[in-house]
This record gives sequence, C-alpha cells and structure tokens, in this order.
Amino acid sequence: MDERTGLPVVGMVGAGQLARMTQQAAIALGQSLRVLAETPDDGAAMVVSDVMIGDYRDLADLRRFAAGCDVLTFDHEHVPTEHIEALVADGVTVHPGPDALRYAQDKQLMRARLTELGIPCPRWQSVASAADLESFGNTVGWPLVLKATRGGYDGRGVWVVNSIEDATDVLASGTVLIAEERVPIARELAADVARSPFGQGAVWPVVETVQSDGICVEVIAPAQGLDAELADEAQGMALRIASELGVTGMLAVELFETTDGRLLVNELAMRPHNSAHWTIEGSRTSQFEQHLRAVLDYPLGSTTLTAPVAVMANMLGGPDDVTPKGIDERLHHCLARWPDVKVHLYGKAWRPGRKVGHVTALGDDVTSVRERARAAADYLTNGDSHA
Amino acid sequence: MDERTGLPVVGMVGAGQLARMTQQAAIALGQSLRVLAETPDDGAAMVVSDVMIGDYRDLADLRRFAAGCDVLTFDHEHVPTEHIEALVADGVTVHPGPDALRYAQDKQLMRARLTELGIPCPRWQSVASAADLESFGNTVGWPLVLKATRGGYDGRGVWVVNSIEDATDVLASGTVLIAEERVPIARELAADVARSPFGQGAVWPVVETVQSDGICVEVIAPAQGLDAELADEAQGMALRIASELGVTGMLAVELFETTDGRLLVNELAMRPHNSAHWTIEGSRTSQFEQHLRAVLDYPLGSTTLTAPVAVMANMLGGPDDVTPKGIDERLHHCLARWPDVKVHLYGKAWRPGRKVGHVTALGDDVTSVRERARAAADYLTNGDSHA
Repeated sequence: MDERTGLPVVGMVGAGQLARMTQQAAIALGQSLRVLAETPDDGAAMVVSDVMIGDYRDLADLRRFAAGCDVLTFDHEHVPTEHIEALVADGVTVHPGPDALRYAQDKQLMRARLTELGIPCPRWQSVASAADLESFGNTVGWPLVLKATRGGYDGRGVWVVNSIEDATDVLASGTVLIAEERVPIARELAADVARSPFGQGAVWPVVETVQSDGICVEVIAPAQGLDAELADEAQGMALRIASELGVTGMLAVELFETTDGRLLVNELAMRPHNSAHWTIEGSRTSQFEQHLRAVLDYPLGSTTLTAPVAVMANMLGGPDDVTPKGIDERLHHCLARWPDVKVHLYGKAWRPGRKVGHVTALGDDVTSVRERARAAADYLTNGDSHA
Repeated sequence: MDERTGLPVVGMVGAGQLARMTQQAAIALGQSLRVLAETPDDGAAMVVSDVMIGDYRDLADLRRFAAGCDVLTFDHEHVPTEHIEALVADGVTVHPGPDALRYAQDKQLMRARLTELGIPCPRWQSVASAADLESFGNTVGWPLVLKATRGGYDGRGVWVVNSIEDATDVLASGTVLIAEERVPIARELAADVARSPFGQGAVWPVVETVQSDGICVEVIAPAQGLDAELADEAQGMALRIASELGVTGMLAVELFETTDGRLLVNELAMRPHNSAHWTIEGSRTSQFEQHLRAVLDYPLGSTTLTAPVAVMANMLGGPDDVTPKGIDERLHHCLARWPDVKVHLYGKAWRPGRKVGHVTALGDDVTSVRERARAAADYLTNGDSHA
C-alpha cells in the first residue's frame, strides 16, 4: 500500500513495452507501477519513477523487488518458475501464480494440460531423440514444426523441418523440444480474456493476427467474417483455459483457424499481449487497465468496442541507417498525413525485426482502416508508405 | 533531444494532475515528460522518472530545469512572467510564450486585450480605490464581481460584493483588482482549442461546465441544446483568441452564456484544462496529447468524438474521516457498479474542495450518462451515491 495515496502498489517484473503501456493505465488508477528493469534505459524504466535495476533470474533481486509491492506481475514469461514459487512461499502475492504461469513458460506442459482438458491443439509429441521425431513425422507427415519448450517468442525457438536431416542441428543442441504437426492454416486468430482471482472473466471479440516471418505485424479487431459459432467457441475456450489453469490477469490464446474450419490452440501468453494492443483505443477498457484490475482483484471493466473496426499495425525495427535517426521527422509527417491514427512508441533501441512501436486506426471500413494503419506504421518505421 | 529515443524532451513546470495526465500522453509519443515538482509526492512526480524538485518562482531553478529540455511548458499559470522572459532570452523554447501567457496570468491584461480585439466580455474596470469601485458599481449596478488580477483559481481570488462596504477588506488588502459586472448567466460553457507555433488550430465541440461554489464539478460534452450559431461563435472566438494572442498549446476559453443568449468570455487558461478532461476517452485525441503535439510543433490530432455524449465529473476532497482512507475499497465498489465508467485518480493528498480525481462516462443519452458519472464520482469521493 502506498500510504501517500491509500492505493496498492503493483510491481511488474520486466520493463519493456508491456510495462510501459501498463504504466499509462496505472496512472489513471491512482497508482504508479514499480518495475524491475535490466537497465535504466528500458522502455518502461524511462517512464516510471519507481525503478529497481536487477536480474529477473536472480531470486535475491526478485525478493528485494517484491518487498513493498502489494502484488507482483510480469512483462514476460522468463522468470524461473522455481523463483516464483519461492516468492509465493515467502508470502508474496503473485499474479499469475506459478501454477498457472508454468503453462505459458513451458510448451510441453501447456500441450499436455490442454490435451487433458480436451482443448483442440495440433497433434504434438515430446521429442528427445531423432527416433522420436522420425516416428512422429511418419505419423503426421512432413514438414512439421519443432519448438523449444521454453524461452521462444516472436518466431524464435520455432523451426519448420522437412526431414530428420533438417532437424540435426536443433536435435544436437540439447534444446528441450516438442514436435507439432504443421496444420493447414487459413489464418491466425487470438482470443484475449482477463480473469481475476475472484474468478470474474472478461472477454474481447476474437481478433485476426497477421503474421510475417513468425512475428505478428497486424491485428484486425474483430476478426472479419468469422463464423459466429467459431467466435463463440474461441471465446469460450479462452475463458475455460483461464479458469481451468487458474490464470489471473490477462490471457492471450493464439489460435489457428484451419483451412477446414477448425480452431486449434497455438500458444498461450499470461500477460498483456500484442494481439490486444488495439484495446487501448478500440475498447472501453484497455488490456493494460484490465490486467491491473485483474491482478489487483478489482472488478473488471467493460470490453465494449469504441468503433466497428480497429486495426493495430506493428512497427518493426528496420535498417540501421534510418532508425531511430530521423524518427522525429518521420513522426511529424506521419501525424500530418494520418491525424486520426494513434501512435505508440516504445522508447526501445531499434534493431531489425524488433517491435519498437505500433499504431492503431479506428473506423467503419476494414479495408481503409487497414490501409491507414499499415501505411502509418510503415512510414514511421522507414519513411516508406504505400498509401 | 533524448539520444536514447531520438525524440524531444518536454519539460513541464509543475507536477499536479495536468502534468500527471500529460505523462500518459507523452508515453505514447515515445517520450517521458520531465517535471519540475515542489515535492517528490506531487501527483506527477510519482509517475515520472525525470523529476527535479525545485521552486517555480526561482529563476535559477527554472534555468536548471530547462537545461536539456527541448521545450518548456506549464501545468499552471504561476511562474513569474519575468522569469519566463528571462528563459526565452536564454534561448529556451517556451510554449506558451510569455507574450501569450501573460494574458492568462493577469486578468486585467486579458480584459484589456480582449476588449481591444472586440471579443465580448462582461463590462469591467480596473479598481484602485473605493471611488473607482463606487463609480463602476453605479454604472453597472450591484452586486458586482471583484477579481484579483493574478493568482486566483477554482473560485479563489473572486468576490461577489453587494456594496462598497462588502469590498472594504479586499480593497484594503492591497490585492490588485478588477471589477466586473455580474451578468445574468444561463450556464457556463468552455471552448477548448489547441494551436501550434506553425499556426495550426484544432477545436473540440463546445462543452457545458457545471460549477458549484466557483469550482467546476461536471463537464457535459458537447453542450446540450446549444444553438449552432452560438457554438460556431464560441469556437471561432477561441480560435481567434489563440491566434491573436499567439497562444501555443492548449487554450481553454471559459464562457458565460447569458440569459439573453449572448456569449461573454469569463477566463482564459493556456494549458490542459479541467473542461477538456473528457477528451481522454471522448475524443480521438486527448487534450494532453494535443498539448504535447502543439508545444512540439507536431501536426495536431483529430478531435473526432468517440461517443455522442461524454460527461466528466470531478471528485472533490471531502471530510477527512473518509478520505483517502478507504479509497481502495470504494474503488472496488465503484468499478463493480459502473464497469464502463473510467476513473482517474490524481495521487494527491485529499483536502476538502480540492480536485483529487475525476471520472468520465460515455454514451448516447445525456441524462443517464450524467447520472452515472455523477454517482460514480460521488461514491468514490465519500461512499455516497444517488444512483
């Protein structure tokens, strides 16, 4: 409890863009986020007064950080599960708790648990050897997908392999792996929900996530032309997973919509997620406010949409010669050209392929909203636009 | 320029709720506000990493604060004009500049300049003596309004006097005063605009500001049932004042709508203003983002509304026995009862009559939107609600 305000203190481990945007929501709720940052130049560390520099892999640092926090939550999945368990044993309130979070940290645990619950997933198998892989490949067919069970994100830790030979290096690396069938994908969707410790759930409309090289580049909310029954199924699945796994805070369920009209769970994330950045402007309650409300066990907010269509387009770091040099000039031009597009810059160093910002456009017509969002994000990123 | 981000640094003198909410907008634009705070517990100082503790009345402090800022702006009007002039002479970029800001700092200068421009105001006169006041009162009639030319806000520095005798104490206090006729007021309105150094203007719909004891308690956007010609006149007046006075940043023009259907300028504020807090949720671009865009000479954002009606209700500090003690519990109940109302708490110490937060409700029907906003703000403030 912050005695100055009479309000709780939320500590977020990690100080990237998710913590940065959570700070915006915390300010409205009368709070100020506390963040555990790796450096003072982390995106969220630059916009928060209460920053501790430390190592999220170090239990002593985590303990020092947790002292004085009413609740601890996360900007990423990389805190060792055993450390989170130790914090809980210390009496720290942690949301999501380790019993839920481990399913977002370990893809093998997640697949096993979802399979147990009867939640549709691609066919999968643990792979400890070339023989395991060969046997699985012979069952589901090649190519198939190899995934590191821990630590992957934005396409990292995922390999599409056409044969045992393709997998030699990965298999030899000692990475703990699962293999999954490569399903025929019509498009990727996401169902974003929040759940509070009390058990209240809130759900947003299912969105389409457009991927490029394994990185989400665009989100269309709601997913256009989605069969109403599939939409219900996706939302119900996300709420059920949140409940069965005991998730507290935001849960993003990444889904494949297959060419034969099935929904399969791809990944889970238990934190604010790229697929719901559009909620900042596109919904009455943003995912960042909702995450705070959930981890504080406050009642959840309305998820009513503020416009028929919202499109979020990511800015991915481009070649070094144009970024971040010139960003201020490009921002000028962008704001002039698209006065109604909302810009979010993350204060991060620009590296090729890294998410450094996003824009959101709202409107009635999905085609023009997509065009504006894409063009503004492209222009901001590299001065080039197709609009 | 912040070399980490390639983006400019805005310094705001003052660290109250306006700076606090400006920080939310700065975060999206890739920046982090720098604030000059009186104490580390100021509302904005708690949510900003780059805080300098200092005295806004001290030129040396202001100079130290300005070093490293690309542009300096203000959370309040109380910085001495001569200090701002000194900063400009130093080469500091200041928005609004002293030549504009003095009209928001000194009511006598403001009245003289608006009169010169032919902008309708209540009849007024400088008052240096009882004889001045008597003569003015005999012309416009009693009661009339005495105003301190500098330093008043939220009803402070304003006295309604029925006679010379009523004014004895104020006249004897040495306060520099103007007198104004007391006009028959149907309601109070505000026209909020932004203007960039380049000269671009942006305007929101005219709003009604509901006052209680000289303090704004509620804002209805847009003002309901306002004659279209009067609305045009108000917006045109605000844009013209911004242009003629060389305002850069937000300008709020507080207006009286008289019982005989005229518009008269009451006050000017050259900063984000209570009358436009509703824009955070109610407009595509909030006044806080717009103020930043304006002082940075970025192109201004769309002022499109996000709902037919937005109502903002202020939370005014109540009796000490309920505030801030219990605010966390009241917040729980408030969020449960009104899941779509957006809450903004300022992190300030609660004192009777002090603005400590606000809520905004959106919708189609003004009556129910007002009821929800008022009830939520009242409940948050003192646990009592009429809804």
